[in-house]
Amino acid sequence: RINGDRLWNSIHEIAEIGPGIAGGSNRQTVTDEDAQGRALFQKWCEDAGLTMGVDEMGTMFMTRAGTDPDALPVYVGSHLDTQPTGGRYDGVLGVLAGLEIVRTLNDLDIQTKHPIVVTNWTNEEGARFAPAMMASGVFAEQFTKEWAYAKTDAEGKTFGEELERIGWKGDEKVGARKMHAFLELHIEQGPILEAEGKDIGVVTHGQGLSWTQVTITGKDSHTGSTPMPMRKNAGLGMARVLQLVDEIAWSHKPSAVGAAGHIDVYPNSRNVIPGKVVFTVDFRSPNLDVIQDMEARLEKGAKEICDEMGLHIEFEKVGGFDPVTFDETLVTSIRNAAERLGYSHMNIISGAGHDACWVNRMAPTAMVMCPCVDGLSHNEAEEISKEWSTAGAEVLFHAVVETAGI
Amino acid sequence: RINGDRLWNSIHEIAEIGPGIAGGSNRQTVTDEDAQGRALFQKWCEDAGLTMGVDEMGTMFMTRAGTDPDALPVYVGSHLDTQPTGGRYDGVLGVLAGLEIVRTLNDLDIQTKHPIVVTNWTNEEGARFAPAMMASGVFAEQFTKEWAYAKTDAEGKTFGEELERIGWKGDEKVGARKMHAFLELHIEQGPILEAEGKDIGVVTHGQGLSWTQVTITGKDSHTGSTPMPMRKNAGLGMARVLQLVDEIAWSHKPSAVGAAGHIDVYPNSRNVIPGKVVFTVDFRSPNLDVIQDMEARLEKGAKEICDEMGLHIEFEKVGGFDPVTFDETLVTSIRNAAERLGYSHMNIISGAGHDACWVNRMAPTAMVMCPCVDGLSHNEAEEISKEWSTAGAEVLFHAVVETAGI
Ligand SMILES: NC(=O)NCCC(=O)O
Ligand SMILES: NC(=O)NCCC(=O)O
Repeated sequence: RINGDRLWNSIHEIAEIGPGIAGGSNRQTVTDEDAQGRALFQKWCEDAGLTMGVDEMGTMFMTRAGTDPDALPVYVGSHLDTQPTGGRYDGVLGVLAGLEIVRTLNDLDIQTKHPIVVTNWTNEEGARFAPAMMASGVFAEQFTKEWAYAKTDAEGKTFGEELERIGWKGDEKVGARKMHAFLELHIEQGPILEAEGKDIGVVTHGQGLSWTQVTITGKDSHTGSTPMPMRKNAGLGMARVLQLVDEIAWSHKPSAVGAAGHIDVYPNSRNVIPGKVVFTVDFRSPNLDVIQDMEARLEKGAKEICDEMGLHIEFEKVGGFDPVTFDETLVTSIRNAAERLGYSHMNIISGAGHDACWVNRMAPTAMVMCPCVDGLSHNEAEEISKEWSTAGAEVLFHAVVETAGI
Repeated sequence: RINGDRLWNSIHEIAEIGPGIAGGSNRQTVTDEDAQGRALFQKWCEDAGLTMGVDEMGTMFMTRAGTDPDALPVYVGSHLDTQPTGGRYDGVLGVLAGLEIVRTLNDLDIQTKHPIVVTNWTNEEGARFAPAMMASGVFAEQFTKEWAYAKTDAEGKTFGEELERIGWKGDEKVGARKMHAFLELHIEQGPILEAEGKDIGVVTHGQGLSWTQVTITGKDSHTGSTPMPMRKNAGLGMARVLQLVDEIAWSHKPSAVGAAGHIDVYPNSRNVIPGKVVFTVDFRSPNLDVIQDMEARLEKGAKEICDEMGLHIEFEKVGGFDPVTFDETLVTSIRNAAERLGYSHMNIISGAGHDACWVNRMAPTAMVMCPCVDGLSHNEAEEISKEWSTAGAEVLFHAVVETAGI
């Protein structure tokens, strides 16, 4: 059994780095706060006897040696970066549960056959630099390193420059590592486990995602002296497209969702009709056909809206991945661990994207989920109980040890 | 006759201070660029023999003495601040035409009975700090100086601190000056004069304005894992309210306009359902009843939309003025000047707000307008011809000299 208090204390210690304004964290990727969080995690790992490797995307691989020199490592982890107004558990739980597994193995003086590598993937959130799961995506050969380096934040800084600036651009080639397996514990970020009263979600699938950045161009002009029929109001065009996004997502209920979280209006002045609006539509479904249908209907419908209004519209795919099916053997190992430990559990489809979704393409992969209060995440008020985190880490511990072998 | 080339050159010289990115200007109020623009204007005025007074709102009053020691001054001017992506003429034309009048009087060695005061009103645009026409509004006893000082920009800086920082907080009490008259030349910022082929707009009225800042609060949560029925999407609420704004404005066609130019979404991250949106609705009409009807329908309709969606909504009036009727004697003087000079002219209602709209409450006031290309303003591509600016300044010159007496 792992030490639930120790895990809980570590979670809340790192949450103080890049504190939020309402109890959560603001430790966005490749910021100074991210660097501080990484340094603390590195120290903890080194105190636990792990050795560090860092790849060219800044992903941290902290290795506990195995007894079989030929055995590929079992990877376990998640991410330490957060949303700008993020919670304390999203990502952090999975990384620190990996560390807790190692600490527990040390306490119990257990050696595993396969090495265990606790992993902190860079830029999982995609808040500062799209897309999400960026480093695991490069690892999984979905994007090139150069493409990722060139991504810019709202201030125009590139990911590559910022990674270098904070001192975490490693020299290990991305994707060079071969994995025996990858296991990730994450909070659900949705309401299902809590509603069903289950301790553990056995994640069988992950829903797919599509991010389309939409740019609507009209003509900025005076809100007072421009007659209504002469307006080319990009803000009004955006409003109509947002309604369309909502209608499209509902039309596939209950197996799709859709919304726009990011909206920038230019020049954003009270008495200027918006001449340009840039926003990102987020569509998800466990069904690839549904995602493709939603994308196609968005492009067609939004184009019609803009044509009618004399606006110009452009679409750019800025992120996405297909629905995922996790490795059956590992999924079974997780289910058995929950059963053995006496935790209530159920199969679940991940609503969010995770590093595991990309790594799944390179190695056998699976995920454990624990509930979160009111299904709330990407919110500083995100909350879980110590019991839930302990249960999740314990199931993860058993699955990792089973996979790594003794 | 005034010197149209000299006026034109001065306009384009000052436009280089705080240059825009597409040929216009970005010289927002109480920025370093504003301070540089003011210094250049001050130098030009002092070279023309004017003496400076600056009030506690930073408004610049540049005086050419009159021959009658008891005569109240005739004020003439507009504003030198611009939108973030503003044109070269909006406001600037009116201030520099005032300077050109003085330069011409100097050239012709004409003394007027009443002093002439060329005026640069602080923060007419209201882009950085709402409301628009802030300093003329304090002058007209619509707001207190303290209230204006406390207004904050997007970065949380206050107007008062910034005015002090740039070194333009004067010591003259706001509103202490009594005026014989105030005259303002401005570009139309709308399409009517150009469409009608007229050189001069004789501004008889100004339409009223209402700015309502709307705050919609939902709950930020994950775009992937939050089921559709559980969402409290403030961005979607905003989209529906923007459509309502458009419908309300059209319902009063052709005598009303409505739009939102300012929209801020929080936390503005691609995978976070917006938990809060703040935007400003701009309604205008020459008819006060229409404005009040639009305000009431917005509050009622937007509340219904938000109630239905489980969102919270708040309204705050952040700017506005009632429709204006300008002084008949001055309006006639302007019309006669246009007629005498052989310029084609028509009566017009100002679609935009102007400092003249507030000053009108304190002293006899009127406005001259000249056309602008395609009616485009609040856009860096704002354009007028040298002939139009010359005609406007000449009509202003004649009206000022007639009002100031020789
Ligand atoms: N788990 C998580 O919030 N990941 C961010 C990527 C996504 O939007 O699903
Ligand atoms: N003239 C002008 O653009 N003034 C700004 C105030 C308004 O929005 O009407």
